[in-house]
Amino acid sequence: MAGKEKESVSLLIQGAWVLTLNQRREVFAPGAVALKGEEIVAVGPAADLKARYRAAQVLDYPQGLIIPGLINAHTHAAMALFRGLADDLPLEEWLNSHIFPAERHLNRDFVYWGTKLAVAEMLLSGTTTFCDMYLFADAVAQAAAECGIRAVVGEVLYDFPSPNYGPPAAGLSFSEGLCRTWRGHPLVRVAIQPHAVYTCSPDLLQQCGELADKYDTRLIIHLSETQKEVADCEARYGATPVGHLHGLGLLTSRLVADHAVALTKADLELLAASGAGVAHCPESNMKLASGIAPVGELLSRGVPVGLGTDGCASNNNLDLLQEMDTAAKLQKVRYLDPTVLPAPAALELATRGSARVLGLAREVGALAPGMKGDLVVIDLDQPHLTPIYDPYSHLVYAAGGADVQTVLVHGRVVVQDRLLMTFDLEETLARARELAREMK
Amino acid sequence: MAGKEKESVSLLIQGAWVLTLNQRREVFAPGAVALKGEEIVAVGPAADLKARYRAAQVLDYPQGLIIPGLINAHTHAAMALFRGLADDLPLEEWLNSHIFPAERHLNRDFVYWGTKLAVAEMLLSGTTTFCDMYLFADAVAQAAAECGIRAVVGEVLYDFPSPNYGPPAAGLSFSEGLCRTWRGHPLVRVAIQPHAVYTCSPDLLQQCGELADKYDTRLIIHLSETQKEVADCEARYGATPVGHLHGLGLLTSRLVADHAVALTKADLELLAASGAGVAHCPESNMKLASGIAPVGELLSRGVPVGLGTDGCASNNNLDLLQEMDTAAKLQKVRYLDPTVLPAPAALELATRGSARVLGLAREVGALAPGMKGDLVVIDLDQPHLTPIYDPYSHLVYAAGGADVQTVLVHGRVVVQDRLLMTFDLEETLARARELAREMK
Repeated sequence: MAGKEKESVSLLIQGAWVLTLNQRREVFAPGAVALKGEEIVAVGPAADLKARYRAAQVLDYPQGLIIPGLINAHTHAAMALFRGLADDLPLEEWLNSHIFPAERHLNRDFVYWGTKLAVAEMLLSGTTTFCDMYLFADAVAQAAAECGIRAVVGEVLYDFPSPNYGPPAAGLSFSEGLCRTWRGHPLVRVAIQPHAVYTCSPDLLQQCGELADKYDTRLIIHLSETQKEVADCEARYGATPVGHLHGLGLLTSRLVADHAVALTKADLELLAASGAGVAHCPESNMKLASGIAPVGELLSRGVPVGLGTDGCASNNNLDLLQEMDTAAKLQKVRYLDPTVLPAPAALELATRGSARVLGLAREVGALAPGMKGDLVVIDLDQPHLTPIYDPYSHLVYAAGGADVQTVLVHGRVVVQDRLLMTFDLEETLARARELAREMK
Repeated sequence: MAGKEKESVSLLIQGAWVLTLNQRREVFAPGAVALKGEEIVAVGPAADLKARYRAAQVLDYPQGLIIPGLINAHTHAAMALFRGLADDLPLEEWLNSHIFPAERHLNRDFVYWGTKLAVAEMLLSGTTTFCDMYLFADAVAQAAAECGIRAVVGEVLYDFPSPNYGPPAAGLSFSEGLCRTWRGHPLVRVAIQPHAVYTCSPDLLQQCGELADKYDTRLIIHLSETQKEVADCEARYGATPVGHLHGLGLLTSRLVADHAVALTKADLELLAASGAGVAHCPESNMKLASGIAPVGELLSRGVPVGLGTDGCASNNNLDLLQEMDTAAKLQKVRYLDPTVLPAPAALELATRGSARVLGLAREVGALAPGMKGDLVVIDLDQPHLTPIYDPYSHLVYAAGGADVQTVLVHGRVVVQDRLLMTFDLEETLARARELAREMK
């Protein structure tokens, strides 16, 4: 010790286990993570880090399992206000008689509070980044920034007038404004988000692609969600949705295909060759009876796959721990093979996978020096997580969002011992109840 | 008021909503339940019951959703000690290299503490009755009785020696002893539980049937869990497992078929004609890649269907709220129809359905006068359950076991504000950790 000064760090967090998901997928038990401000400077055995660093703040979880923050690759956060408004209906009736009419009430205030409501749920259940597609994306960005959660936001674009930006032509300039406003923000990124091939003309899609190129950001679209979408696209454009985007020159590593349920063999090959990513939303696809995405085949072809919940109107929660569980089990029963998507692979979807799909792989999705301080502590001191043989198994198959104890985003403690630290939960719940009453 | 005495009850419990699941499926908001000792005496609008009854104890949950206690129709509780021991493996390797060797360590102590561990998880997540199939069923019964949970227990019987009762022939007399010991117990019932058609000779199965008849109890068996089981049974006996039991005269209203995944059209007709019930275990069937049971077709033919989690080695939790969610979504994607198994029907599986399958429909599964006081309060004051439009939807699609606040079994408060009231959780967790260490 003599003559050896300890290095100063802002925060040292220790747990019974650390699953790093780094290049070598190291696991430390007990383990620790050291942070300087927003950045991780070291991850390793707890004893090593305690010997090496003097920390301004120490968080010690002797029964905690530390993992990278979870990343929701596709949602519509403000739809938390529509949760349970209508369920168990045929897709067209659900959309045309319930969701679209409810969305006519939309305004900036509704989206702002709806997003805060969703962010409360996400942070409390271990989600540290979400990718959102919705109207009034400026309100989504504002809510995310205020609440201290990382977000990729985008205004949904289509060939109809929008309650936000007005005529279709104004959507692109609104999106461009968003890109400029939020450029360089530490937490918020803006992506270009045309709704789908059945709501966007080829012209609009190409203009979206150009804008994504101009601002070097992701182009995100609902793609091949249902067999009906595929059949309609083939009838109209003579190609599957994937083939249609390929024909428009939009199937690139910039593209994120949300859902990607109904894929032909040729679609799989096109996706794999393009470098495009997929946001897999298993629970929504089940609830809306869309089908089961061929995740096993996507992964075996090297297609980047992330995990999303979709919005609360079709899930109906934002719990990525439950979503991993469902994803792993659903692929097994799809292929009738229990070895498909084992627990570590399911966790990869919601961390490294989502990060790669969203273009954030250099910042989040793993615990390693140089990465941002986005991490989650799971409380293992509970009957359904005792005893523990394999932390990956417990995380994916036994834990749920309510087992999240503490959460850091960008080096900041945003949830501590199950309490939100960054905004007023009671105010948010009260506003959510008011907005729901007004809608009736 | 003058001249009108209020009637005395032992407990009045009030909530923002009461879902009765009674004959008329009444919902009261706000609602209340009045109990005298173990029995429900009234269910109705909160104001009515407050005017009518003077209660020794009042529990008031202004943001609570009160439902009948959930009923786990099939599990192996003590396998909570094997949770995460081995996952994501082919079925034969999983059983032969991991589960069966681990079960060689079994003794009465292991089953007793494993069951208590599982009961802690079940009570805390809203399960008030479980049907268990395992070795050392006397220890299961003892643990259930001590912890204050309702249980249907049965010693698993097969053609091999058992670490409990020894030679196969001793299994029937052991089961008969159980039936006698627990006759008349307020919480514990004993059923006869042969393991499966591939582990039990036709002789053993028939003797089991006779014993179930003699003690007028359920005959419970794993049945048609996989296509392989069906193919093997056809090769050996020239009949599907359902057909085989029919041939043996065992397909009656006394029979409970656990799993029932791989059913032919003829099997469906036989089951419907017999009055036999099915314990549906969707998450286990997914995780082991067994397939998806045709619950939609079973229900449309009038077959009683309950909901089970199976054991923690193949799920890996005992959370029936999550299991309802998965059940509802899985049937929709199986039939590619979002209207199949809507939220209220999924709740029925885990309450009235399980009660009917287990022969307990006159006691539990609904909140009505004369029924036992088994009920659960869900805490709605949370971001993922706010706002609320439809309590059935929130319960099935958004809530999880951790949202359970208070639980009554047989009129006794067994969980209050998320704390176990009937036994020492810390002691149980400590013993579970010790037993896991010994097993390694």
